[in-house]
Amino acid sequence: MPYKGQAKKLLDNHGIKEWDSIRVYLDDLEIEAVVLPGPETDRYIYLKLPNGYNIAYNVKRIKKLEKIGTIKPKYSLPSMKVTIREDLPQVSIIHCGGTIASRIEYSTGAVAPAFSSQELSNAIPEIFELGKISLRELLNIFSENFLPRYWIDMAKAISEEFLGGAEGVILTHGTDTLHFSAAAMAFMLENLPGPVVFTGAMRSSDRPASDSAVNLIASVKFAINAPIAESVVLMHGRPDDTLCLVYRGVRCIKIHSSRRDAFRSIGVKPLAKVDSGVKILTNVYIPRKDREYLTVRPYFEEKTALLYVYPGIAHQLIDILVDHHFRGIVIAGTGLGHAPEYIFPSIRRAIEEGVVIAMTTQCIWGGVYMNVYETGRLLKKMGVIPLHTMLPHVAYVKLGWLLGQGLADEDLKNVLMKNLRHELIPCEPLDCFFYDPIS
Amino acid sequence: MPYKGQAKKLLDNHGIKEWDSIRVYLDDLEIEAVVLPGPETDRYIYLKLPNGYNIAYNVKRIKKLEKIGTIKPKYSLPSMKVTIREDLPQVSIIHCGGTIASRIEYSTGAVAPAFSSQELSNAIPEIFELGKISLRELLNIFSENFLPRYWIDMAKAISEEFLGGAEGVILTHGTDTLHFSAAAMAFMLENLPGPVVFTGAMRSSDRPASDSAVNLIASVKFAINAPIAESVVLMHGRPDDTLCLVYRGVRCIKIHSSRRDAFRSIGVKPLAKVDSGVKILTNVYIPRKDREYLTVRPYFEEKTALLYVYPGIAHQLIDILVDHHFRGIVIAGTGLGHAPEYIFPSIRRAIEEGVVIAMTTQCIWGGVYMNVYETGRLLKKMGVIPLHTMLPHVAYVKLGWLLGQGLADEDLKNVLMKNLRHELIPCEPLDCFFYDPIS
Repeated sequence: MPYKGQAKKLLDNHGIKEWDSIRVYLDDLEIEAVVLPGPETDRYIYLKLPNGYNIAYNVKRIKKLEKIGTIKPKYSLPSMKVTIREDLPQVSIIHCGGTIASRIEYSTGAVAPAFSSQELSNAIPEIFELGKISLRELLNIFSENFLPRYWIDMAKAISEEFLGGAEGVILTHGTDTLHFSAAAMAFMLENLPGPVVFTGAMRSSDRPASDSAVNLIASVKFAINAPIAESVVLMHGRPDDTLCLVYRGVRCIKIHSSRRDAFRSIGVKPLAKVDSGVKILTNVYIPRKDREYLTVRPYFEEKTALLYVYPGIAHQLIDILVDHHFRGIVIAGTGLGHAPEYIFPSIRRAIEEGVVIAMTTQCIWGGVYMNVYETGRLLKKMGVIPLHTMLPHVAYVKLGWLLGQGLADEDLKNVLMKNLRHELIPCEPLDCFFYDPIS
Repeated sequence: MPYKGQAKKLLDNHGIKEWDSIRVYLDDLEIEAVVLPGPETDRYIYLKLPNGYNIAYNVKRIKKLEKIGTIKPKYSLPSMKVTIREDLPQVSIIHCGGTIASRIEYSTGAVAPAFSSQELSNAIPEIFELGKISLRELLNIFSENFLPRYWIDMAKAISEEFLGGAEGVILTHGTDTLHFSAAAMAFMLENLPGPVVFTGAMRSSDRPASDSAVNLIASVKFAINAPIAESVVLMHGRPDDTLCLVYRGVRCIKIHSSRRDAFRSIGVKPLAKVDSGVKILTNVYIPRKDREYLTVRPYFEEKTALLYVYPGIAHQLIDILVDHHFRGIVIAGTGLGHAPEYIFPSIRRAIEEGVVIAMTTQCIWGGVYMNVYETGRLLKKMGVIPLHTMLPHVAYVKLGWLLGQGLADEDLKNVLMKNLRHELIPCEPLDCFFYDPIS
């Protein structure tokens, strides 16, 4: 049994073992589930829910446990011996949780998290034929619960892996906020020796249609072979398993809530296509640097906000942030970077109190051009910083990162507007509005 | 001179006439401009700005005027005689402002607003050959300044035009929030005798590349010929002038900030294509009803909000809305309808205090399925209402509209989740993720 410490104590105290069927009492919820063999852990209990999904709960959240019965698995999890091939390029996989981190045992129907090297190898042994894989667990959360402060740990962990010899670092991550994390790593890490590849799955590994194996295998290929040393997102490029696409971390969003090709590059073509091989689709990228130049700036000001405007938006949404001493607000404005006139007094007050206000467009495609219309000109005159083609969530991440570094006002403004990681696109190609990845 | 009342008085007091070059002092701004001949008005001064754009200021906003000089226009605005063809189907055009409501006099370089019937006919005389055109001025604003209470007036005005014999009603509207207004009219008006067509322009009519004439002509064709009696958006379907596309008002967004084909249908194909003729592309639509059945429900609860979540969102953004007695909040959640766990207490408190909380997805494509993951299930258990494939801005408009009608809690919840105007799509076709309008 891989449970130890608090987790083992909790289970032992209730006489509960792996594959026992139990009732779990949490703050908000009471559920029936089956206890799964998890990776070695002293803090989490791994459970299979009645709907077939698996989940890990921190023991601190568990108020009470009750044993209902015992399920006899037909056989225990296979425990295939994996050979770590020292002759292959080193690739680090850092686990951050999410849908990708689960798999099914078809013989028992039970779901087991595949967090450990052992588990993962059983699920996707192909990756060990491609690289010298090392695994590291950073987080075990659904990505909707991601917090900016985790980005600090993430940047440090990635840096350690590169300094430890990795040719590329892969992060398995929930897809909900994967594009936020990819943008954060793009800024926090500079002069990378290799790519930082964010990947995930839209179907958990306990489903026959899971995209996790294809995405992870493609990530390893890209991490080893690509000349691109940027923070990127690698996911399915089509609804089927035929190809993956690689998106610049600062130029993509999750644009579909459920399709396997849920991510899309905005205003630029994907950086690469991965199927049997890796095909680079662009000449414009940041190349690999010598390991010694790697720079990490793991900072984030949590008093940063992102606000979408709309007809009737309450000015109090800005006021309350100023009252709580927020230091920066990114507005996702309408059209070319507009906000309703009646919230101008709130914006003006924010700026007077030293809050950095930056403007992006909620249209997603295109950008902010605040000289065209009166509204934009007035906002600019007040001191609102136009961020051109920067995506709203990227602007949020970049502003928080810059505020965290304690730059002087004018410096901050200049760096915020500067194109550091291709987050700005000088000219949007006509066919990049809706790039069709299939053609 | 068309100026009268306060506007005339202000100009007269400063000895200023049409085509005079002046300096205007506003609260926030001091600008040089040329006074244009506007439509008959007692409240607005029409100005040509140095960048070639035109704008109308309410005299109340003008603090001071100074005459700089006089521009001699080579000739005055042409004043072509328009024949109103009583034999043609009646089409009403309701002006709400925006970029479309302007045109250039190439001989002088001056920009004149084309708000009046006379002006519009000079700009786009073709429309008078298609229908018996009647014109009505409702608003003269940039659409970023649109307020929900204007929707009340808009619904009433549209209803009056239909009851006055119109076969279709066209609204010329700024594009920034055009999709919000189109959604609002979809709900406020029922059993329409003909289509309500929202159109606008991405290039003001004072530019050679303006899309306003093509869009307005196509709108008149659609208003007369289409069997579809819904609130729709009609804009360019390609960057060039070859075709316009018609989108369901509750299923489209402005997805590009500057391209002429800025709007896009989400999850469904466009309803129709308009070039030389009108081609209907769907079988699923609400048909024209007899005039007598027209129903107007012009209500909106202004204490309704729309909130996008992201990693690190301040819970105070929810708390402040509850403190100010907001009655409904639409959350644009991540992925399948998630929000970070640490704001659950704020959501719970809001629901306990009677605030309706509904969930949509910020992914835009796809929908909310809150049974798949733990986060969604917890939110649902708290009382958060899942709105499936309803777009966030449509959910906001619908919730405000329902709250404005004072329905009982359970009724409101049921109607909110019900598919009233095809705002929900039961099944998204595979090729409607990124429908390519060109093929």
